[in-house]
Amino acid sequence: MPAWTRLIRFISTDNRILRGEPILPSPGFDIGQTTEASKLHAKVIQGEDIYDETGKTLVTDEIAVVKKLLGPLAREDVPIVRCIGLNFLKHIKEGGRTPPPFPSIFIKANTTINDHGAPIVVPRLCQDDQADYEGELCFTIGKDAKDVSESDAYNYIAAYTCGNDVSSRKLQRDPALAGGVPQWGFSKGFDTYCPLGPCLVSSVVIPDPSILYLTTRVDGEVRQSESIDDLCFKIPYLVSYCSQGTTLTKGTVIMTGTPSGEFVLGFPGGYRSLVVLDSRRM
Amino acid sequence: MPAWTRLIRFISTDNRILRGEPILPSPGFDIGQTTEASKLHAKVIQGEDIYDETGKTLVTDEIAVVKKLLGPLAREDVPIVRCIGLNFLKHIKEGGRTPPPFPSIFIKANTTINDHGAPIVVPRLCQDDQADYEGELCFTIGKDAKDVSESDAYNYIAAYTCGNDVSSRKLQRDPALAGGVPQWGFSKGFDTYCPLGPCLVSSVVIPDPSILYLTTRVDGEVRQSESIDDLCFKIPYLVSYCSQGTTLTKGTVIMTGTPSGEFVLGFPGGYRSLVVLDSRRM
Repeated sequence: MPAWTRLIRFISTDNRILRGEPILPSPGFDIGQTTEASKLHAKVIQGEDIYDETGKTLVTDEIAVVKKLLGPLAREDVPIVRCIGLNFLKHIKEGGRTPPPFPSIFIKANTTINDHGAPIVVPRLCQDDQADYEGELCFTIGKDAKDVSESDAYNYIAAYTCGNDVSSRKLQRDPALAGGVPQWGFSKGFDTYCPLGPCLVSSVVIPDPSILYLTTRVDGEVRQSESIDDLCFKIPYLVSYCSQGTTLTKGTVIMTGTPSGEFVLGFPGGYRSLVVLDSRRM
Repeated sequence: MPAWTRLIRFISTDNRILRGEPILPSPGFDIGQTTEASKLHAKVIQGEDIYDETGKTLVTDEIAVVKKLLGPLAREDVPIVRCIGLNFLKHIKEGGRTPPPFPSIFIKANTTINDHGAPIVVPRLCQDDQADYEGELCFTIGKDAKDVSESDAYNYIAAYTCGNDVSSRKLQRDPALAGGVPQWGFSKGFDTYCPLGPCLVSSVVIPDPSILYLTTRVDGEVRQSESIDDLCFKIPYLVSYCSQGTTLTKGTVIMTGTPSGEFVLGFPGGYRSLVVLDSRRM
């Protein structure tokens, strides 16, 4: 297992970009609400490879103070983002669809990776359109995985985090496009369209992700709120299915799909995203 | 511009894996037909970054003999493969489709990258299905590109090569999947499903790719044969469109779409691919 149980990336009060193990002031502390004034402290993590299990990467005793949270993963930490398109049963039914027999998969390039709370830049191409949020539970692959069985799947999951699968719907759904083929890869693939974080939580802390509860807030207002237990395709199955004939390279982020919720239309100028992953029991 | 005009990767007769500038025995020599007996020679290229323009990567005077061609690009040379789904006018009409107003784009991970002539491994998941060839003109991005105009597009293209966008159709097209959403990213995304090469040809040698002619042969039989001039969306437009709001990172491979042609069904055991890019005028 990695050296940390929780990992944040941040600018410290002495203006360094650091990774750290946050020191939670209280068990229920919401790291996403950190401000400079709130003085979140973290033990500095040293080492390049956050998934290292050989002792090269370690949590030091040096304590830094968080000035500004970044995302837990920089672009270079993520080879690729693999996404599940329709996975929450209520969301599928909301769209008038029947549950699919297999997961629906698409890819976001690592150029979409964005920091927690950072602006989402809607390209000119979409500025008469908009960008929707899709709050999602994400997990990261800690070592190369291929042809993994469901029973072995958790051994490849290093950590969990929140993500926003930002989507420009008009480009995604225009029936004139490509003979009606939805443009998932393109319409969700612009730079900044994958904010993650603020915290990676080790799978040691979350042995069973189905007990998690996902909440998406926009300007403080809850827009999506669903139990991860509503996933049509469960996480061990996703690891197994996505890895069939396919190497899930170390560092890969998998987004598990978005739950039902009232999507917001009309954000021509971009917006800041906040997705919070809570657990009812933890 | 890079130091080379043509680049191959190969195992030399003294069993090193090398990059080299091939020494063509005759102007019309087909590098793809190289065998150990044919004794293709190449000047060894030194340097890690094949797109380097600062003189760190160079074509040396050391001459090596090719024992076996690999693909021109190793997995680590390619951050991502961006693909155009429907782009040849005759192929679009062949499928009973009308030309789309914008390119249809999907992504293959770099885990699909395969050597020229190497086996394609059809995963068990598809072994009651098959794998089709789709011969395509590919180009590589020589420096990070974002919001590029059509008139500036060629400045970002480093080189051209051939590729095979191997596709397992059943997974791609099953109407039961994801409410009818074609699974392009998954069905074309297995390890080995993107053979490239055998040769990168610098854009200095090919200032106008529209004069190229694409031929796909299976076991020597021509199955696809079309002028690149039949592209619905031309190459400068593709660079511009794909780069809108999106960083095309250095090393990105773009596959431009497949022409019409009789696709082969029923390759449960995998096959070897050969795509040849000719030019009528060069």
